Amino acid sequence: MNNFHVLGFAGSLRVRSYNRGLLEKASEILPEGLVLEIMELNDIPLYNDDQPKDNLPEALKEFREKITGADALLIASPEYNYSITGVLKNALDWASSNTFGNIMKGKIVAIMGASRGLFGTTRGQLHLRQVLHAIDARPLSRPEIFVRKAGDLFDDSGHLVDTATIEKIKELLTALLETLKAK
Amino acid sequence: MNNFHVLGFAGSLRVRSYNRGLLEKASEILPEGLVLEIMELNDIPLYNDDQPKDNLPEALKEFREKITGADALLIASPEYNYSITGVLKNALDWASSNTFGNIMKGKIVAIMGASRGLFGTTRGQLHLRQVLHAIDARPLSRPEIFVRKAGDLFDDSGHLVDTATIEKIKELLTALLETLKAK
Repeated sequence: MNNFHVLGFAGSLRVRSYNRGLLEKASEILPEGLVLEIMELNDIPLYNDDQPKDNLPEALKEFREKITGADALLIASPEYNYSITGVLKNALDWASSNTFGNIMKGKIVAIMGASRGLFGTTRGQLHLRQVLHAIDARPLSRPEIFVRKAGDLFDDSGHLVDTATIEKIKELLTALLETLKAK
Repeated sequence: MNNFHVLGFAGSLRVRSYNRGLLEKASEILPEGLVLEIMELNDIPLYNDDQPKDNLPEALKEFREKITGADALLIASPEYNYSITGVLKNALDWASSNTFGNIMKGKIVAIMGASRGLFGTTRGQLHLRQVLHAIDARPLSRPEIFVRKAGDLFDDSGHLVDTATIEKIKELLTALLETLKAK
C-alpha cells in the first residue's frame, strides 16, 4: 500500500512554538500508512489580490504546490485574540481565493492546538472550523485536541512529554488515516 | 477645539479595493472635528513572537506608533472565507500581543465593510467584533455598515458614488465624533 502524504504546518512562527512541538511529536508517532512533511509559513507574503497569477513568489508557489500534492493537512495553531493567527488565516486565504484558485476544496484537514492557558485554543478552533467550512475543506470533527497549560507538558528542550497528550495525537492520526482510507 | 485624529486602514491590499474606496470617501466627507489618516498595511511582516522587541521592522514600528497616537481607528475590511482577512488579523495581532504590548486596549474603533456579493461582510464583521473584544478595544456598535454588491456602487475610476452608502458613512463618522467627544 502506498503511504498517504500529510502536510503539516503551525499557525505560529515562533521557533519554540508549542504548536510546532505538537507537529514534531506527530511525526515521531505516525501510524504506518502516513508520512508527514512539516512546512514553515515564514516566507508566505501578505495576501494581495493584485499579485500576478503567473508570477507568484517562490515560497507561495511552493506552499500551493505542496497543498495540491498532499492527501491531507495537519494544522496546529495557537489562539490569538479568540481566533486563529493572522499568519494561518493569511496562508489559508492564499490557498482558497477565487483569484488564485481554491485548492482547499475537499481537502481533509486534522486540527490540533496548544495554549499556555486554561482553554487550549477552543475559540480559535471554532473560527478555524468556520473558515474551513467557507473554503469547502473537510475538517475531521473528532477527536478534538485542546492542549491546555502547554508550559507544563513540554520539557526544557521543547519536546512534548505528556503521555495523555501524546495518546490524543495518536488518536487523531489514526482517525486521519482511517478517513483517508475510506475516501 | 482640537481635532480628533482617526487612523484608517483597509483589510485588503488590492489597489482598487472597495474597502479602501470607503475610507477614501470617508476622508472627503469628514465632519468638522475629525481628521483621517489612511495607512497601508502592505509592509507589515507576518507576526512572529520571536521578533526582538527593540528591533521592530520600520513599517511595523510606524504602524504601532500611529495606533498609539490615534484617538480612534476606522477599519474597512472585506470578508475572506467568512472571516476578516489574514492581512487585517495579522496587523491586529501585532497591535495587541502580550509580547509587544496591547496598544488596542480601550481604543475606539469604527467598522465598515464592502463586498461584491449579497452579504456585505456580515460574517467577517462578527469575527472582527470578537477579535476586538478579545483585545479590549471599544468598537462602535452602531451604525453597522454592510455594503453589498459593491460593484454597482462605485464608478469606473473606483469612487463610491452611491448616495445611500455615502449617507451611512456620514452617520458612522458622526457617531464616531460623538463617541470621542463623550470619552
